Amino acid sequence: MSSQSHRVEKDTFGELQVPSDRYWGAQTQRSLQNFDIGGPTERLPLPLIKAFGVLKKAASIVNVEYGMDPRIGDAIQQASDDVISGKLADHFPLVVFQTGSGTQSNMNANEVISNRAIEILGGELGSKTPVHPNDHVNRSQSSNDSFPTVMHIAVVTEITHSLLPALSELHKALDDKAKAFDSIIKIGRTHLQDATPLTLGQEFSGYAQQIKNGIERVKDTLPRMSCLAQGGTAVGTGLNTKRGFDVRIAAEISQLTALNFVTAPNKFEALAAHDALIEAHGALNVLACSLMKIANDIRFLGSGPRCGLGELSLPENEPGSSIMPGKVNPTQCEAITMVAAQVMGNQTAVSVACASGHFELNVFKPVIAKNVLQSIRLLADGSRSFTKNCVVGIQANEKRIQTLLNESLMLATILNSHLGYDNVAKCAKKAHKEGTTLKEATVTLGFLTPEEFDEKVRPELMLHPDN
Amino acid sequence: MSSQSHRVEKDTFGELQVPSDRYWGAQTQRSLQNFDIGGPTERLPLPLIKAFGVLKKAASIVNVEYGMDPRIGDAIQQASDDVISGKLADHFPLVVFQTGSGTQSNMNANEVISNRAIEILGGELGSKTPVHPNDHVNRSQSSNDSFPTVMHIAVVTEITHSLLPALSELHKALDDKAKAFDSIIKIGRTHLQDATPLTLGQEFSGYAQQIKNGIERVKDTLPRMSCLAQGGTAVGTGLNTKRGFDVRIAAEISQLTALNFVTAPNKFEALAAHDALIEAHGALNVLACSLMKIANDIRFLGSGPRCGLGELSLPENEPGSSIMPGKVNPTQCEAITMVAAQVMGNQTAVSVACASGHFELNVFKPVIAKNVLQSIRLLADGSRSFTKNCVVGIQANEKRIQTLLNESLMLATILNSHLGYDNVAKCAKKAHKEGTTLKEATVTLGFLTPEEFDEKVRPELMLHPDN
Amino acid sequence: MSSQSHRVEKDTFGELQVPSDRYWGAQTQRSLQNFDIGGPTERLPLPLIKAFGVLKKAASIVNVEYGMDPRIGDAIQQASDDVISGKLADHFPLVVFQTGSGTQSNMNANEVISNRAIEILGGELGSKTPVHPNDHVNRSQSSNDSFPTVMHIAVVTEITHSLLPALSELHKALDDKAKAFDSIIKIGRTHLQDATPLTLGQEFSGYAQQIKNGIERVKDTLPRMSCLAQGGTAVGTGLNTKRGFDVRIAAEISQLTALNFVTAPNKFEALAAHDALIEAHGALNVLACSLMKIANDIRFLGSGPRCGLGELSLPENEPGSSIMPGKVNPTQCEAITMVAAQVMGNQTAVSVACASGHFELNVFKPVIAKNVLQSIRLLADGSRSFTKNCVVGIQANEKRIQTLLNESLMLATILNSHLGYDNVAKCAKKAHKEGTTLKEATVTLGFLTPEEFDEKVRPELMLHPDN
Amino acid sequence: MSSQSHRVEKDTFGELQVPSDRYWGAQTQRSLQNFDIGGPTERLPLPLIKAFGVLKKAASIVNVEYGMDPRIGDAIQQASDDVISGKLADHFPLVVFQTGSGTQSNMNANEVISNRAIEILGGELGSKTPVHPNDHVNRSQSSNDSFPTVMHIAVVTEITHSLLPALSELHKALDDKAKAFDSIIKIGRTHLQDATPLTLGQEFSGYAQQIKNGIERVKDTLPRMSCLAQGGTAVGTGLNTKRGFDVRIAAEISQLTALNFVTAPNKFEALAAHDALIEAHGALNVLACSLMKIANDIRFLGSGPRCGLGELSLPENEPGSSIMPGKVNPTQCEAITMVAAQVMGNQTAVSVACASGHFELNVFKPVIAKNVLQSIRLLADGSRSFTKNCVVGIQANEKRIQTLLNESLMLATILNSHLGYDNVAKCAKKAHKEGTTLKEATVTLGFLTPEEFDEKVRPELMLHPDN
Repeated sequence: MSSQSHRVEKDTFGELQVPSDRYWGAQTQRSLQNFDIGGPTERLPLPLIKAFGVLKKAASIVNVEYGMDPRIGDAIQQASDDVISGKLADHFPLVVFQTGSGTQSNMNANEVISNRAIEILGGELGSKTPVHPNDHVNRSQSSNDSFPTVMHIAVVTEITHSLLPALSELHKALDDKAKAFDSIIKIGRTHLQDATPLTLGQEFSGYAQQIKNGIERVKDTLPRMSCLAQGGTAVGTGLNTKRGFDVRIAAEISQLTALNFVTAPNKFEALAAHDALIEAHGALNVLACSLMKIANDIRFLGSGPRCGLGELSLPENEPGSSIMPGKVNPTQCEAITMVAAQVMGNQTAVSVACASGHFELNVFKPVIAKNVLQSIRLLADGSRSFTKNCVVGIQANEKRIQTLLNESLMLATILNSHLGYDNVAKCAKKAHKEGTTLKEATVTLGFLTPEEFDEKVRPELMLHPDN
Repeated sequence: MSSQSHRVEKDTFGELQVPSDRYWGAQTQRSLQNFDIGGPTERLPLPLIKAFGVLKKAASIVNVEYGMDPRIGDAIQQASDDVISGKLADHFPLVVFQTGSGTQSNMNANEVISNRAIEILGGELGSKTPVHPNDHVNRSQSSNDSFPTVMHIAVVTEITHSLLPALSELHKALDDKAKAFDSIIKIGRTHLQDATPLTLGQEFSGYAQQIKNGIERVKDTLPRMSCLAQGGTAVGTGLNTKRGFDVRIAAEISQLTALNFVTAPNKFEALAAHDALIEAHGALNVLACSLMKIANDIRFLGSGPRCGLGELSLPENEPGSSIMPGKVNPTQCEAITMVAAQVMGNQTAVSVACASGHFELNVFKPVIAKNVLQSIRLLADGSRSFTKNCVVGIQANEKRIQTLLNESLMLATILNSHLGYDNVAKCAKKAHKEGTTLKEATVTLGFLTPEEFDEKVRPELMLHPDN
Repeated sequence: MSSQSHRVEKDTFGELQVPSDRYWGAQTQRSLQNFDIGGPTERLPLPLIKAFGVLKKAASIVNVEYGMDPRIGDAIQQASDDVISGKLADHFPLVVFQTGSGTQSNMNANEVISNRAIEILGGELGSKTPVHPNDHVNRSQSSNDSFPTVMHIAVVTEITHSLLPALSELHKALDDKAKAFDSIIKIGRTHLQDATPLTLGQEFSGYAQQIKNGIERVKDTLPRMSCLAQGGTAVGTGLNTKRGFDVRIAAEISQLTALNFVTAPNKFEALAAHDALIEAHGALNVLACSLMKIANDIRFLGSGPRCGLGELSLPENEPGSSIMPGKVNPTQCEAITMVAAQVMGNQTAVSVACASGHFELNVFKPVIAKNVLQSIRLLADGSRSFTKNCVVGIQANEKRIQTLLNESLMLATILNSHLGYDNVAKCAKKAHKEGTTLKEATVTLGFLTPEEFDEKVRPELMLHPDN
Repeated sequence: MSSQSHRVEKDTFGELQVPSDRYWGAQTQRSLQNFDIGGPTERLPLPLIKAFGVLKKAASIVNVEYGMDPRIGDAIQQASDDVISGKLADHFPLVVFQTGSGTQSNMNANEVISNRAIEILGGELGSKTPVHPNDHVNRSQSSNDSFPTVMHIAVVTEITHSLLPALSELHKALDDKAKAFDSIIKIGRTHLQDATPLTLGQEFSGYAQQIKNGIERVKDTLPRMSCLAQGGTAVGTGLNTKRGFDVRIAAEISQLTALNFVTAPNKFEALAAHDALIEAHGALNVLACSLMKIANDIRFLGSGPRCGLGELSLPENEPGSSIMPGKVNPTQCEAITMVAAQVMGNQTAVSVACASGHFELNVFKPVIAKNVLQSIRLLADGSRSFTKNCVVGIQANEKRIQTLLNESLMLATILNSHLGYDNVAKCAKKAHKEGTTLKEATVTLGFLTPEEFDEKVRPELMLHPDN
């Protein structure tokens, strides 16, 4: 950004110096100066920038159909491809905390694409000829329908191509463990206290179910996320666009992305509210809750090596301590639970922002987009990291699991029908008081022989309903 | 609660005095004493209590099929009906902030129903004969699967019978207004600033769409909310229940409620996580955001009577001021936006609670149930109140709307194609600077005659895309 | 509320039937009918009602000074005392979700006190003679300054007389345990993994410090909570009140409550924003976080009896399981962590509400008041219950603590300076791999004799910095 | 990051290739690979990195006092200065979502400083000689006390040097406006409805008071934020450090930063809980609420130009619309309210994270640090931008304000004492019904002459209490 040479760009407010190695124009430059909030780390996320590429390409294709010069259209489409590929990411410097309609980011896209198209056509940067940022790149569009459109494109794309595959991997890994651990019987825990047994596989099957449901939940939000505002222009009426433009551009965006977009049934709602985005984030928030629970369980079950529960061994990915062998910190669990905390916070941010629209426009668009896309990315990356660096490598400490199960007094439950509740209670109380096993207590009290005990007290009978 | 006579009830911890005019037993009484947190206003909500009636009745029916004495079954079913009807509400005194599995509330139900059934059969309260709270009323059940089951029954019931009808009424009222206001052209507002026109009907159609989507969102959560944990017993394995019990009881609950419940595909998930409830609350949270936006718009559009926007007249339901006629406070908007704030807060509470389960049990069940049911009730009651006392009575101040539209400079947009942007800008700037109308400025500058202006500047042409 | 006889009350909107055994008047009755949202469980909390008694009494005293008939003043003060005592609680039926300024609750207080004062003076209920609800009880006041004033009175009162004493008890109980457990050396746990030792007393000293800080935090919010809006009347200018009224009434309220209130330095801020209340709730939110951490630790340390950490024994307050002796569920921990989740949710609700004021008035006052007062009550009651029913009864399982400490490999740390890191690592790795103690491994490898090991590996040397 | 040449670094897990133009070592590199979550935009914030420079410099100074080789100490201090200056920012690539104790970021600091110190002393990068990352740079420290220490240093520094000055500027700008607008009388608005008048200066004085209180609130959190964990080492006992080290290093950090730090009174609390950070964020959250209110008011008061309230003119910083002159979008208000929404979300994230510590360590440290530092930066930058680009340039539209005031019917209030309530009501109702002014109605009804009206109805008498 510290380019030394500049060119002059201008807008209706006047002239501005722009770094000569950047494609952006005056409105982008002005925004950079007026919104010095947060610096580079607060820039709008890349998937949103790429979605601008998709939108502007689709608009150009449709605009050519409606009569725009095809030579200009081709150049715009070529320039848009450079935005889609991410090559021009450095030309989108604007931060989240700007105009609440994202107007300047829409202009940033218009400026970059027009200058790049001008370049392609051999013109002079900043000349707005032969490709004008407003008259050509932004034709039939307004910031007010463009920004919601790119929010939806980016979110559906990231959910489809990043989050859902990552969740599927995680689900598969958990489900694989559920199967692999299917015959390992362990003590159950309710209220953190010893309870009746289940298999480690059953325990993991619950985690797998959570993620399976989570995938369905996210998918269930896609129908409303797939509705595009484009064609509503400034206030939702579609003024300055052509009848049918909305349907055509949704079709073209579907074509370009190989995703299924449709035009929004009501453009007023699509500009003034972003309920679809807080709905989608609600599903992300459920995932955060699920992951918090799963990762907490795994790190507690893996706690130790000597003074914790110790039922699981987690992969050792980095030195846990420079002093102590066997100290494997559950760092992947820590990362994913931090992701969960962030997503739970983003839920509040997105709720506040989505509740705060007025009249024909919600002007919290950039902060909504940023939080939803951040949550998607963190959940996707976090799930991948958690799967790869933790879940697939989890091993059961079968010996420890067996020891705990045997020491438990909860197996007594199964003797109720044989000895009666009162006698069973005597055995369990004795064992509890004296610190012995249930078997020892039962045998000592003369209720059963060791052989009878072993025959009757079989945890494998406690894993399902009676026939 | 100030009964003077008592009877003695006992549990495994010993004897306790219970008010003689109450059906509850020792475990309920003990919880009352151990959890003196919040008092009567923090009691578990009534729909949950009624759902216990449904559950215990269904369990009794199925238990009779599995061999329980039908005479006892009949008495339990009769007693359960008294719980379902709400007649015994005063016999459920326990607060939210108790054991996190809701164990004592399950026991409260068992105790009340067994004592009422004993009474029906002519026995002595507190004798546990011939109807035992555990052995009969709670047969084949555990608190750990019962409480999640009643959470789901209560939430699905309240959504179906209270929230969705209330939302439908609100949707209809907004949609009616959208139609009634269809030909009233008004100034649009983006960034709170004057923008191109739309109809008041179009504006309300956006609100109607929000609620329509909201209804769909809530409905989309029902499939997962309809899965019942019952049959999982203590840890999800179904120990101490019979094969098939889970399917049968879900069917019986469906029968009793005329709602569509199924047994949960994975009972471990159903006890240890309450993802379905935070998912459902996510949909409620979207409604909160929608209602905040809609009610804010309506109160701003109704602001005045002289110094606000004044486009709408809201019904006057109570004295706004003892001094000033015409001061109609938008009190229904205030109530519903306070509901929205509460629901947005409950979203955080439910998220934290749902994320905090451990191993085989989430022990934040009562606080989850309370918050979700409170949000449903507030949204349902609030929507009904808002519809009846505000929306249906909204009137358009057509004169004021017309005045503002005429004064606006934004209609100039339509002249761009006739006069060119630069000339139009001159007209608008002159009008802005001199405080005159656009028409005056345009005529004064000699661009158009008054007749030409009126012919060309027709807001009704600005309400849709060009043909 | 099901009284059968009625009397007629009226306001500027007309006549209404009011139950004849209630003191309230037409405006209260109208609000009951217009805001059928949530029912009795959503009524404004009692401390707020009592604060209205304080305010109206103080106002009457000052109004007499400014010239009101002392006979009327006396009757108002006597009637206010009945409100302060809680005797008239049933006469305040209004819910939170009403007019956002709390106007009708202010009128409820005016109506009840005037009717009660009329009764005292032998007049006829509903006659507004000789004590008029507006002209006398509400003299020099507006809802807009009265409601913020009672919010502050109620919150400061509840913090001072309920929350702070409850926290002090909890702090003392934790501090007592810190002292009692001062010589019990136990394994430390970081990342849930075994770490170097500390004493159980040191561990509890951290909890005690959290609560000590929490008390300071809450106290630090009192200066701003003690500023009263009274005297600002409708918009903050003090129109219709007398110069000096604001200072006098703050002094009188201080006198009546024995608490230290002052008049707000800026009445515009005091009506339009409730920053002091979200500030105070921020301190409550910290307490929620602290209690979540402390209670989680305690229940994990108390987990077992055989298959958990088992370092603590928690008091057994109710049957944990009808089957299993020794199953003591940490129910008090569960209740207090549910309180924490609720308070964390209320933080969001109060934030949204406090951010949503407009111009001269924030109209989310009742929902703010309700959430802050609920959080205070739940934290106070919850802390008392947790202290009494859990903390004071916690016992250390010294044998178990000792066993875990001895089995730990982390004590090896202390040998680094004697044997060098590499040799120590060898010992620890051998023990870890073979499942033996560190001592066995060290002796087997020939690095130390058993006696030398015992002399050097002394956990009590690891509890503080080196001299 | 795309350096082509590499060097080999190693840790106890083995060897790794590190870019040869980077100072970091094996543990940093390993973390980069294991935590591929979020990419560069999720890196830990720079103030935290700089705080590591401060900490390591201070530790080195104290370690030399306690006997470390001064030559090594000097090199460490010189290298630390390069971290403090920000010159080495590119050498800290790790993301937030890593080990929850921030261990690898502490190691990143140790590795970078040791390698830079080695370079200064003419050694070979990666050789750990003569300056070892653990033995020298990290001497007497653990990640577990270092990371909390740098969190506190960074937060106190950013609050002191960035946030508080920014808030002071904003306060001054608002206070200046309060004074400048002191004699402009305007209509008040409560419930968004016309109310009794106040001055525009009084209105702004409320905003100024909010920020003044906000400054005090933030300052009030500094005492607890100034307590440093350093000296607690791994679990809070201070094992492996020297008696007095904690006090000395706090003094040295105070010296280096010219800020007032002290050692934490209880190190167990300081490692295991981060209550001080959620407390501090609570104050930031209040600021978010304040700014949301202030910016909403300003944009509504500036709404128009023709169809809004129009009382204020906001500075025009960028083209609002390519079509319409006079359309000045309140973009700075939009940016700062988006900041507010983000901070309100961060509050939830930090609450969840702070509530989730276990035993001797909270392992949500990086996500806490990131959110608190982000909120500080956004509030600071946002306030500066809002002040400079909006508040200082706000102008009152006195003519519009006067017109609205005159049209208002609320001035009737002042006639109550002259004409009696009933007659005044007649005048106001007539004016309201017929759309005339209060004066016209009063004169037409014959209650006052125009001259009498003007003499009596003087808004300037309505701005304060009666004498």
